[in-house]
Amino acid sequence: PPSPLQPPGLPLAPCRSFSNNKIQVELDESSGVAMMKFKSPPVNSLSLEFLTEFSISLEKLENNRACRGVIITSAVPKIFSSGLDITEMCGKSLEHYTEFWRAVQEMWLRLYGSNMVTVAAVNGSSPAGGCLVALSCDYRIMAENPKFSIGLNEAQLGIVAPFWFKDTFVNVVGHRIAERSLQLGSLHPAPEALRLGLVDELVPEEKLMEKAAAVMAQWLALPDHARQLTKTMMRKAVLDRLVAHREEDIKNFISFISKESIQKSLRMYMEMLKKRK
Amino acid sequence: PPSPLQPPGLPLAPCRSFSNNKIQVELDESSGVAMMKFKSPPVNSLSLEFLTEFSISLEKLENNRACRGVIITSAVPKIFSSGLDITEMCGKSLEHYTEFWRAVQEMWLRLYGSNMVTVAAVNGSSPAGGCLVALSCDYRIMAENPKFSIGLNEAQLGIVAPFWFKDTFVNVVGHRIAERSLQLGSLHPAPEALRLGLVDELVPEEKLMEKAAAVMAQWLALPDHARQLTKTMMRKAVLDRLVAHREEDIKNFISFISKESIQKSLRMYMEMLKKRK
Amino acid sequence: PPSPLQPPGLPLAPCRSFSNNKIQVELDESSGVAMMKFKSPPVNSLSLEFLTEFSISLEKLENNRACRGVIITSAVPKIFSSGLDITEMCGKSLEHYTEFWRAVQEMWLRLYGSNMVTVAAVNGSSPAGGCLVALSCDYRIMAENPKFSIGLNEAQLGIVAPFWFKDTFVNVVGHRIAERSLQLGSLHPAPEALRLGLVDELVPEEKLMEKAAAVMAQWLALPDHARQLTKTMMRKAVLDRLVAHREEDIKNFISFISKESIQKSLRMYMEMLKKRK
Repeated sequence: PPSPLQPPGLPLAPCRSFSNNKIQVELDESSGVAMMKFKSPPVNSLSLEFLTEFSISLEKLENNRACRGVIITSAVPKIFSSGLDITEMCGKSLEHYTEFWRAVQEMWLRLYGSNMVTVAAVNGSSPAGGCLVALSCDYRIMAENPKFSIGLNEAQLGIVAPFWFKDTFVNVVGHRIAERSLQLGSLHPAPEALRLGLVDELVPEEKLMEKAAAVMAQWLALPDHARQLTKTMMRKAVLDRLVAHREEDIKNFISFISKESIQKSLRMYMEMLKKRK
Repeated sequence: PPSPLQPPGLPLAPCRSFSNNKIQVELDESSGVAMMKFKSPPVNSLSLEFLTEFSISLEKLENNRACRGVIITSAVPKIFSSGLDITEMCGKSLEHYTEFWRAVQEMWLRLYGSNMVTVAAVNGSSPAGGCLVALSCDYRIMAENPKFSIGLNEAQLGIVAPFWFKDTFVNVVGHRIAERSLQLGSLHPAPEALRLGLVDELVPEEKLMEKAAAVMAQWLALPDHARQLTKTMMRKAVLDRLVAHREEDIKNFISFISKESIQKSLRMYMEMLKKRK
Repeated sequence: PPSPLQPPGLPLAPCRSFSNNKIQVELDESSGVAMMKFKSPPVNSLSLEFLTEFSISLEKLENNRACRGVIITSAVPKIFSSGLDITEMCGKSLEHYTEFWRAVQEMWLRLYGSNMVTVAAVNGSSPAGGCLVALSCDYRIMAENPKFSIGLNEAQLGIVAPFWFKDTFVNVVGHRIAERSLQLGSLHPAPEALRLGLVDELVPEEKLMEKAAAVMAQWLALPDHARQLTKTMMRKAVLDRLVAHREEDIKNFISFISKESIQKSLRMYMEMLKKRK
């Protein structure tokens, strides 16, 4: 049967596909599994536009009773997502910062709180916000390429991961590993990420989609209702914490990002990235 | 010296033994260690009667100053306990559900909050409520038989482990392992259970009782008072949470279990169990 | 360039050194790293005088903008610190107990909440309060000598680690390992301490200082501000808990320590220690 996992280009008869600018989504209604592919070169930055599309795509799938699970991966080679788009945080208006940060929150609230089974097929590096996307899924499979790394490396840029990034991280790797990794802003190569529990398994890159489909099938074998209630029980405290402090979190972000010292750090970082190319 | 660990049938001079219908208890007053054996074939289901006997037995031992520790094991081959008795949750009155659920809570409050040293000698499979009993002890030794499995597999039956099952589980294996295992309703074979930290060690089945006695002796070498205060410090938050929400938890259980869809799932599950025999 | 890591006795040109009775401190202003050496033979007991010096030393370094990190180690062979000085808790006045306990709290609040990078170079055994000192640092390196052990062994003495010792421990090793280790009052030999995550790495004793300097350099490579905010985010909840319950914690300590049974235990323990010599 046609599957969202087959090579792109082949006919996908029973699939509903909706592709926007930055994310391609294909839903295989027979299996109930959607494939969501980040296709925003060069590095799948989480720009305001990307985040908006991401949230809308999640909402569409969530409201589609034919969809029970989503596999999230990248259509860009070597990178899953490079995280929040720094250009959105640099030299913009307070209104823009507010809108951007609300979009980051919105994406996380939808993804971490999704009723669908969410599997991250991490087929490239995944720093900062890219790591958050993976951490927010139910299961993380990573290509076993030691050149690919993953982590919440905000501290390296002189910025601080917000408390709900931290809460999500602690729920995956525990307090000690999170404390050390966040302070050092570590980017963990795939084998180390596995050892720390940051990802659940590594597979050769060419097997990644096959494995993601198999894991999804295993999770979908459970009755949705019981699985969803269980997921809510596990994640509600952390989700509620952001919901309760959402405006405060936006204010904190704006006041932090507006500091001249932080703006300078970010500009230097962007310069460095440009020079690398 | 006579010990509760010697084969049944031999004279146990200094032992006080009280056996009810479903649980056999022998207290060796010289060592201060009680042996509690589940003997409710075929699978040591936690029925209302079983739970009531369990709580009363724990209370008797708790109030007996000669008793400092209890080893919990099964007298039924291949099964430690199959968990909550589904017949108590199927086609009964609301009054019955209330009484049953209060008995489940009572058992857990007594066991998880016990001042005695509690060692689970898991000599068979231990799904759902059976796993909860093991998780609520201070130490878990399991027979190293890969056919024996243990886990909170409620989700497999379409039901949801209550929050205090989850809290107990998280306190043993951490948030991430609990989140995944609960959503998948996993039953972990003994070697995997050890790897996840769900049990503390595996020993060959014939060495299980000897090992349990040795572990008990190690824990009893500590002064009771300091050990008990330490245990309370570690477990109080989770115990208090149920105490504070006990009636609400009963209401939740009743409203969930009374749903026709859940009743149907449970009936199907019971049919399947009957056919297996 | 001269470094605080070079052998004592050599000239340390750019270093500010202040040595009190019990702790020697040398700050290398070029690297921003202070070396703090416990030198209170025979076992670096945390007496009232020691704790006062410790807190004052930390405060001085904290307020010195030239200091960004501190390496804590022992100048006494085979022992890092033996923990709280039992003579301070035995046969003294209530006023003394109050003053002593406040000094213990003060030391921990300063160390666990320090804005500096704190690395423990554990070059000897480290029971009880000595273990707390190590646990409160950002990173723990221990000499790989299986004769050296570390742990919160209070229960062995018939006393109970206070809740904030427990919180600090849980933040490092997780709930399950803490629950078991605290109840058994375990002293873990270095290899076991590594396996449990109680220390971060083991190195041969002669490489300890070199390794501590390398780890410190790695942590200092991060921008201070982001690292400090991240550290605060990870530790604030546990620090706030003691701050909110500080007077109550003192009362608890006094009422516990004043019990005749506890006084008797401590006297017996001190007798045992004297006989060992």
